Amino acid sequence: MNFLEERIVKDGIVKHGNVLKVDSFLNHQMDIALMEEIGREFKRRFGNKTVTKVLTIEASGIAIAAFVAKEFGVPMVFAKKSKSINIDGEMYVAEVESFTHKNKNTVIVSKKFLHEGEHVLIIDDFLANGCALQGLISITESAGAIVEGCGIVIEKGFQYGGRAIRNMGYHVESLAIIDAMDAESGTITFRQQEQDA
Amino acid sequence: MNFLEERIVKDGIVKHGNVLKVDSFLNHQMDIALMEEIGREFKRRFGNKTVTKVLTIEASGIAIAAFVAKEFGVPMVFAKKSKSINIDGEMYVAEVESFTHKNKNTVIVSKKFLHEGEHVLIIDDFLANGCALQGLISITESAGAIVEGCGIVIEKGFQYGGRAIRNMGYHVESLAIIDAMDAESGTITFRQQEQDA
Repeated sequence: MNFLEERIVKDGIVKHGNVLKVDSFLNHQMDIALMEEIGREFKRRFGNKTVTKVLTIEASGIAIAAFVAKEFGVPMVFAKKSKSINIDGEMYVAEVESFTHKNKNTVIVSKKFLHEGEHVLIIDDFLANGCALQGLISITESAGAIVEGCGIVIEKGFQYGGRAIRNMGYHVESLAIIDAMDAESGTITFRQQEQDA
Repeated sequence: MNFLEERIVKDGIVKHGNVLKVDSFLNHQMDIALMEEIGREFKRRFGNKTVTKVLTIEASGIAIAAFVAKEFGVPMVFAKKSKSINIDGEMYVAEVESFTHKNKNTVIVSKKFLHEGEHVLIIDDFLANGCALQGLISITESAGAIVEGCGIVIEKGFQYGGRAIRNMGYHVESLAIIDAMDAESGTITFRQQEQDA
């Protein structure tokens, strides 16, 4: 197991309905040393790519993406989930359905902050059905920018998002891919990845 | 002018309705080197306090709070704006009105992540009418934790939030306090603070 899988086993809680609670270290309370380690690991995995911008989506992707952007020495942009009066002018828009919240969000990025020819590394905390990631890919490509890769902290490998996005040819790196979890026993089965070999 | 005031003058845009757009470096696209500098500056200003946790509110406070928490070597918790099925159990709740979005939000923090006797540094990007900050203070004190201070990146000094919260005895440090802005000329008047002297 890598550092993240070890942490998930230690502090993650499996709930019914295929919910994995990692709110003690990843998406409500945040372990900053872990965020830094995640940043370094994505730099290692995508270090051979040209990256000029890191893109994520509010809210729980923000801290992770910030530490990834720090490693690459580039700005971070986070997509917003609703129109704010503080964002004027034209923007890129995608519709995103949330697995967690069971609703649809309009996701927006100002055209000022994504440009043609930019090299974008997309970062998010979870990949399940892939809707959020597809929205960020769509926004990036609407801008004429290049998706250099997608860095995911935890992928639910038993849902179809990761496979669908890899099948479209995108380079997706997930620090932990969960193939199965059992709420009764609390066991989590991780997919063996080449990175760990 | 300090580093933040200089950046606001350089890249901030004053809009009608007392709106200051800092979305090119603070709350949509983020300049990570600036976030790090903000983290170090809050460490300098609150370094004589005992801080065991940094608390902020989603979304644009998250990256700032993460770099502050890194400086103090403590966890960061961000309050969430709506009930998620991923947060179960009991939680601290406050009602917060948003100046920007013209709506009310229920703000929640899981009781698992704020405890009696903890020393909390509250961080946010903006302070205007003070509702968000009051909500975070209320949540902290509901937990029996101690508000060691409030670190704000940009305070709108012509609104009443900062004065009200200081009058209640809280230690508020704002890296930039704007006493006036003029959309026609684009000028911004900062309050002279002792920190700059």
